[in-house]
Amino acid sequence: MGLVVQKYGGSSVADAEGIKRVAKRIVDAKKNGHQVVVVVSAMGDTTDELIDLAEQVSPIPAGREFDMLLTAGERISMALLAMAIKNLGHEAQSFTGSQAGVITDSVHNRARIIDVTPGRIRTALDEGNIAIVAGFQGVSQDKKDITTLGRGGSDTTAVALAAALDAEVCEIYTDVDGVFTADPRVVPKARKIDWISFEDMLELASSGSKVLLHRCVEYARRYNIPIHVRSSFSGLRGTWVSNEPQGDQQVEHAIISGVAHDVSEAKVTVVGVPDKPGEAAAIFRTIADAEINIDMVVQNVSAATTALTDISFTLPKTDGARAIDALEKAKGQIGFESLRYDDQIGKISLVGAGMKTNPGVTASFFEALSDAGVNIELISTSEIRISVVTRADDVNEAVRAVHTAFGLDSDSDEAVVYGGTGR
Amino acid sequence: MGLVVQKYGGSSVADAEGIKRVAKRIVDAKKNGHQVVVVVSAMGDTTDELIDLAEQVSPIPAGREFDMLLTAGERISMALLAMAIKNLGHEAQSFTGSQAGVITDSVHNRARIIDVTPGRIRTALDEGNIAIVAGFQGVSQDKKDITTLGRGGSDTTAVALAAALDAEVCEIYTDVDGVFTADPRVVPKARKIDWISFEDMLELASSGSKVLLHRCVEYARRYNIPIHVRSSFSGLRGTWVSNEPQGDQQVEHAIISGVAHDVSEAKVTVVGVPDKPGEAAAIFRTIADAEINIDMVVQNVSAATTALTDISFTLPKTDGARAIDALEKAKGQIGFESLRYDDQIGKISLVGAGMKTNPGVTASFFEALSDAGVNIELISTSEIRISVVTRADDVNEAVRAVHTAFGLDSDSDEAVVYGGTGR
Repeated sequence: MGLVVQKYGGSSVADAEGIKRVAKRIVDAKKNGHQVVVVVSAMGDTTDELIDLAEQVSPIPAGREFDMLLTAGERISMALLAMAIKNLGHEAQSFTGSQAGVITDSVHNRARIIDVTPGRIRTALDEGNIAIVAGFQGVSQDKKDITTLGRGGSDTTAVALAAALDAEVCEIYTDVDGVFTADPRVVPKARKIDWISFEDMLELASSGSKVLLHRCVEYARRYNIPIHVRSSFSGLRGTWVSNEPQGDQQVEHAIISGVAHDVSEAKVTVVGVPDKPGEAAAIFRTIADAEINIDMVVQNVSAATTALTDISFTLPKTDGARAIDALEKAKGQIGFESLRYDDQIGKISLVGAGMKTNPGVTASFFEALSDAGVNIELISTSEIRISVVTRADDVNEAVRAVHTAFGLDSDSDEAVVYGGTGR
Repeated sequence: MGLVVQKYGGSSVADAEGIKRVAKRIVDAKKNGHQVVVVVSAMGDTTDELIDLAEQVSPIPAGREFDMLLTAGERISMALLAMAIKNLGHEAQSFTGSQAGVITDSVHNRARIIDVTPGRIRTALDEGNIAIVAGFQGVSQDKKDITTLGRGGSDTTAVALAAALDAEVCEIYTDVDGVFTADPRVVPKARKIDWISFEDMLELASSGSKVLLHRCVEYARRYNIPIHVRSSFSGLRGTWVSNEPQGDQQVEHAIISGVAHDVSEAKVTVVGVPDKPGEAAAIFRTIADAEINIDMVVQNVSAATTALTDISFTLPKTDGARAIDALEKAKGQIGFESLRYDDQIGKISLVGAGMKTNPGVTASFFEALSDAGVNIELISTSEIRISVVTRADDVNEAVRAVHTAFGLDSDSDEAVVYGGTGR
């Protein structure tokens, strides 16, 4: 039995009862012979309450102090969890990100882990302790200031520690049973996935699936740390994310892993752009200089009569106003006629490594959307993903239609047969 | 203008409004040309709430983890205070006890400061920052674990930092206007003291005055750091505590500094102790081995007929049960007839260096008590203090009578004249 890293989110430790339930689960893993390292988030709404307090004293909280404030949340949950474990008769010690050796860069509020030196964790384990580590936080390499890793940071802490400690597995405990073939709130027939490759999980994460964040999966893939996403409430086996399925992890030779959707983006269309070299570069340099990440890009075929074209791209709604502002300011320099902004769009993505070798996936995807009466506005593809942009109102219906068409519904036994001449 | 250390208690930073008010006061000191180091406690009831949470997960919270938990409180208040200061246009940085170089022993929950290495604080000040430091906490020298200093620990943090940084003064901001000649809740005519010596303040603190704790005053005396106790609400000049009065600090050649009282103690009487060498030692060794601190001790004159005597001592009520338990267990070995326990006692203490050179203070004290009809059960004295134990019900009346008798009432202009042949 080797070393296991377990991560528990805020909803799993929302109150004293939750903490005691989690403590029991941790002790069970220890009793099974594992060395156990636990990464824990702040309790329930603690982080939101701290943010509220910060906004009451200062409209624009400062980076360094904001991180100092937020890290109080994990300090509370990890100390309570260690106490609860000790109360069950097992030894436990809690460690801040700094004490656990989570070294980051100096970008407050969204720092990146640059090294993990878990000497104190290793010592605590060797002395028979369960080690509890504060998620979401680290210490900056140059200034020794407390930093936080931004949204989903605790998952990344867990994977980074698992890599540094050469763990067998990183278990991510959450309030759902695992990764599903689609969001169960939209597709009631969505199935829990038993096993999924890092590649497919990365595509799902960047296409709107919220169970695991892209950064965390990327880290796990780089160090080849299997992730097991599972429920802290049910204790059932969840979803394994790894390079290759192990043992009895079911694969079923799935062609398609799942259908993701995302309604958090908006579309910007730059109308009447001169169709000549350098124009697109000028537009996207302007957007990049405003530190905005864009997602999909489409350039229309130039109308022969005018030598003008339109360029559309999607970006997070929260960055929409800044993008429009930046482009308007650069209008004279770039040279375009007008801007259109549309925040009523949605994106549906079909993800699966199987589409590389199964021609006809694209055709089936479009047929399913067409049968559901959904109009496609933009298309973008990777080797193992097809994404389309539609009206936001059509997204839920489109996801259900595609989920059914590819035989992903939980009560469907039909195999989907593809024909045609590739995608 | 030199360096000032300011300490704000939990009631001063109980909510966002309090934090903003304190931030303004700090910025005022900075504007006056001072370098400012601020030590802050946890907000209002935070510590009690954290203790509640701990008790919900574990009936006997463990030392190390309990300290980790409690220190989250100051982390929140110090970060918010730094944000509020920055919002006023001044630079501020917050530091944990560990970052501020507060090095302690390894006794969790009541650690002692053994060194202060404030290199990061000095750097922050030199760069023009206001430094905010978490009170009540440090880091253990050997294990590098987070420790807390126990009750009143933030005051000690402030004085220790003031000593290490060679500050001009350590300002203790609280919710009262300073140190009073008696507890104003008991004696409405109590006067605020303008200046008091370390020695008298130490006696008041150990006699029940709660404004400053003994440990903090002792630290200030050792390093000769003047303390200024004042209100964070009124901003009025408070009480200076130092070796010698400075400038316009009023002294009025006071004979008596104040009257303290304490109803937190109980009295244990060991009845029928053989009146021979070693008996008292055996009793107090038993108490000491139970890690109980005793206060007053009185041995009755032996009754000639029996060669048995009674020994009484006082101790904190909270230690009463343990003391009785320890003595009962050692009964056969020590040899005594029975134990009596009385938790309905109170202690009244008169404190003032003037009593060294003013004969008759003791007589006036006892006369005042007698005139008020208060019976004296035990007496104990030091060079600058007289304490008596009475019934708890008599304490408030006794304090008022003594306060009046020594001309301490705020509307009294009479000087008290002592006659007689010494105390």
